[in-house]
Amino acid sequence: MSIKKNNPSAIDEKAGIFPPEIINSSAMQNIKESRKKQPSATELIEGILSKNITALSRAITLIESTNNEHLSKANEVIQACLPHANNSIRIGITGVPGVGKSTFIEAFGKHLTSLGKKVAILAVDPSSTISHGSILGDKTRMEELVKDKNAFIRPSASGETLGGVARKTRETIILCEACGFDVILIETVGVGQSETAVHSMVDFFLLLKIPGAGDELQGIKRGIMEMADAIIINKADGDNIKKANLTKVEFNRALHLFPAKKSGWIPTTATCSAITHLGIDNVWKAIKKYLELVNSNNYFLEKRKEQNLFWMIETIDEQLKNNFYNQPKTIQLLDSTKKEVQNNTISPFAAAQILLDSYFKK
Amino acid sequence: MSIKKNNPSAIDEKAGIFPPEIINSSAMQNIKESRKKQPSATELIEGILSKNITALSRAITLIESTNNEHLSKANEVIQACLPHANNSIRIGITGVPGVGKSTFIEAFGKHLTSLGKKVAILAVDPSSTISHGSILGDKTRMEELVKDKNAFIRPSASGETLGGVARKTRETIILCEACGFDVILIETVGVGQSETAVHSMVDFFLLLKIPGAGDELQGIKRGIMEMADAIIINKADGDNIKKANLTKVEFNRALHLFPAKKSGWIPTTATCSAITHLGIDNVWKAIKKYLELVNSNNYFLEKRKEQNLFWMIETIDEQLKNNFYNQPKTIQLLDSTKKEVQNNTISPFAAAQILLDSYFKK
Repeated sequence: MSIKKNNPSAIDEKAGIFPPEIINSSAMQNIKESRKKQPSATELIEGILSKNITALSRAITLIESTNNEHLSKANEVIQACLPHANNSIRIGITGVPGVGKSTFIEAFGKHLTSLGKKVAILAVDPSSTISHGSILGDKTRMEELVKDKNAFIRPSASGETLGGVARKTRETIILCEACGFDVILIETVGVGQSETAVHSMVDFFLLLKIPGAGDELQGIKRGIMEMADAIIINKADGDNIKKANLTKVEFNRALHLFPAKKSGWIPTTATCSAITHLGIDNVWKAIKKYLELVNSNNYFLEKRKEQNLFWMIETIDEQLKNNFYNQPKTIQLLDSTKKEVQNNTISPFAAAQILLDSYFKK
Repeated sequence: MSIKKNNPSAIDEKAGIFPPEIINSSAMQNIKESRKKQPSATELIEGILSKNITALSRAITLIESTNNEHLSKANEVIQACLPHANNSIRIGITGVPGVGKSTFIEAFGKHLTSLGKKVAILAVDPSSTISHGSILGDKTRMEELVKDKNAFIRPSASGETLGGVARKTRETIILCEACGFDVILIETVGVGQSETAVHSMVDFFLLLKIPGAGDELQGIKRGIMEMADAIIINKADGDNIKKANLTKVEFNRALHLFPAKKSGWIPTTATCSAITHLGIDNVWKAIKKYLELVNSNNYFLEKRKEQNLFWMIETIDEQLKNNFYNQPKTIQLLDSTKKEVQNNTISPFAAAQILLDSYFKK
């Protein structure tokens, strides 16, 4: 929070701080005046579409709320923003703690804003409920980006389930796009299924690594390497440069273990240093090459359509399960049934049937 | 079907053929007499527990039926067999067409029966509905095993969904175990998600490959190598022996790309020839080593308990979705909602909500 104090123009979570040049818009004026009372959906929509960051922040806060009234207002805002969304490139960034994700995002983000891009930085981190934001939390590592009025940084929504966190992030993307952001970076950590969730909401997936392939290759989680459109070896500076190049070769070889991608894209590897900035421009060049390819073969739009359907189906799935597992009858029966299944006194299928019969008879 | 004629003792699908030494059991007599009418659940249970293969076959046919009366009888049989099940080792075998799965299973199965084991060979092949049994269909390649009274071969159940096929196979395992089979081999092909389904019902997962790593490595489907407890390079005979050994080294290296297994087992590689039988015994030795490890660290039982719960949850999931997507209201709304989502006129989450609201109001 000290960053907020030092950088009054910092665009931050839960709104409240905003660059002076934005204050003048009339939508903003309304929001300022209604600081105590909640701004209306119309005010938020007007604000977002006129590129007002405070309106964006407050609308995201509604998305993240657990209050039903807030959520229905959030849905109204999302629906109105939809026609203005979709004009960005969405990039997923992953890597285990220690690879320098924050410093990479700082360097990469600054490079993008220097090219005239507006960059939103989001995160999917279901563990943030417990750790209170283990990623994107330490913004001192992004001190340049925090001051940049063309950058918007928003830590991960919290929530008990990955599905919930992912949904909120996906809705946030829509608002950011409607607010004029043309590059969306979505950070996640190499834990469990969060990569898969992020992969299903981005156009390009970037895996960060550090020099020293041997050990590094060991640590790669199931399927993550297969999802990568590019593997970037970070920290290629000083004594590490040689090692980084070797690592790059190793990963190039490893990438050949995987089948061709539907996009027609051949995953690429590159080295860079988030500190010296060497190679950072190559990352963006690779992404532009990718965009050229997938725009020409129409894969870009096809993938987005597929992702939209995927999210509809995922949401239905999640809700059906929520409804089932939250039924008092199910809760009452579940533990004993589980035990019977584990002890082999009942088959898993018979057990499922008992629970389902009780549910559908409700 | 010509095999049936040539080998009257062949144990085959849809019952009907059985070795003469089994005919004498009284349960069998009942089944024979009631050939025209369906045997009762009690008769089938008695038959299975007295190791009668015809009873086993007929009970499996009930599992595969779409008739509700048959299914409820099947459930009764499964429930009665459960206390007698679970005393086997379940081995998944996969590999793309052309690796010689059938000849490998023939050689491996014969090796096991020569050691006094009773071996059941099942398959999970959701495509069999269309291809009428692309795997285990060509039993001419298993002509020795087909004649072996300690072997039981049953092609894949058919069904529209992998979930359905997998469920039927899993229930069949229970019956086979209750019938005294102590090794269950479950074959599948390298298509889509069927490996994952098989992996979740076996104790040990075996990936078959042929010599020539370069090309082979390319063809490996998502995650399959990670699931493997052993990679066996088949066709290591004649001019291929050298190449097979090289391939083995390649795969050994590739296996190091993956994180350690929860079982504590380090996946192994071996070469063998299903034709000369060289190395076939090593496969079984590797599996015995695995069993020693996972029995001592209790992973064997833990994994089975986990798998049981997994199947219960999967079944619930599948049924909830079936119920949802088969509702007339859902069917009526789905297509237009999908189109709206694809065209970005509605967010995936709002679309899901519309469908869910209509469903739960039913």
